[in-house]
Amino acid sequence: MKSLYFITSNVGKYNEAKQSFSDLDINIVQKNIGYPEIQADSLEEVAFYGIDYLKNKLKEPFIIEDAGLFIDAFDGFPGVYSKYVFQRIGCLGILKLFKDFEDEDRKAAFKSVYAYYEPKTKPFVFIGECQGEISKKMVGKQGFGYDPIFIPNEGTKTFAQMDIIEKNKYSHRGKSLEKLKVFLKNR
Amino acid sequence: MKSLYFITSNVGKYNEAKQSFSDLDINIVQKNIGYPEIQADSLEEVAFYGIDYLKNKLKEPFIIEDAGLFIDAFDGFPGVYSKYVFQRIGCLGILKLFKDFEDEDRKAAFKSVYAYYEPKTKPFVFIGECQGEISKKMVGKQGFGYDPIFIPNEGTKTFAQMDIIEKNKYSHRGKSLEKLKVFLKNR
Repeated sequence: MKSLYFITSNVGKYNEAKQSFSDLDINIVQKNIGYPEIQADSLEEVAFYGIDYLKNKLKEPFIIEDAGLFIDAFDGFPGVYSKYVFQRIGCLGILKLFKDFEDEDRKAAFKSVYAYYEPKTKPFVFIGECQGEISKKMVGKQGFGYDPIFIPNEGTKTFAQMDIIEKNKYSHRGKSLEKLKVFLKNR
Repeated sequence: MKSLYFITSNVGKYNEAKQSFSDLDINIVQKNIGYPEIQADSLEEVAFYGIDYLKNKLKEPFIIEDAGLFIDAFDGFPGVYSKYVFQRIGCLGILKLFKDFEDEDRKAAFKSVYAYYEPKTKPFVFIGECQGEISKKMVGKQGFGYDPIFIPNEGTKTFAQMDIIEKNKYSHRGKSLEKLKVFLKNR
């Protein structure tokens, strides 16, 4: 059985990947060693830089993941800084930014990027997106982060009104993880 | 005359430093080679990482500079991401975030960090701060960035209502640059 490191401090993400890979011949191992995340416009740039840093430290194949909420009306803000912005202005801050243009574009997307690296190859990147819109107020108690203000296009409820099984039908990270899984199966 | 590289793409910053150093025996040279800026809570962390990257590329002494607006009520937001946030939500976005708590704390600070490195020493960091508050509306046409919504503590006008000479009396970057100059004089 091959081993694959998941470089993350997030046990939830690790468990999600471990469960998804349970029918593959791969032993996924969490490794919390940290890596620099650069200031950039896209998750892909952040991932490529992280891989460039980590590939000199590790001899084994590994994966990393990063995600964010990208709001059209604000040219992608909070984007790659979603966690930082959430901790400082929260969902209410995002809703306030929409004041005075209630009828305007509220389109947004959750994006997730998984990146895979093994020695002597170029990095592979797998992108998952969930298109939707920002709600007019906070609704729901489940999930975390921006879930109470995000309604996926195919639904009528916010992520925070869904249980984990329903949310995962739409989930950006579920989609990128699935692409990574297909890649690993055929490798 | 010794040479000192200023690693920046910003000609305005370079000219400011060149003018300030005109009475020193130092030939300051702009070098636009770029370096990664990491995601971090403080300008100092960003500067230290930048120096760590650049010191392997350059054999000569060099300086870098980074600045941002830190708002107390939002735990330092937009902070090290000031430029990114300005480009996406602007001064009006910041003012909207203050809605519904008009009487609350509007304290903020502009900060600037200059960092100096020469081979075989540790980096030196010089911090300049201008304490003030966020105005209730945008006022003034001069300056750039968040200038129309920032009133320094010692003044009654926003930075955007001041000419460059008046603004420089308060300026965060003027202060960090002055500290760097004193350091270089005595070196």
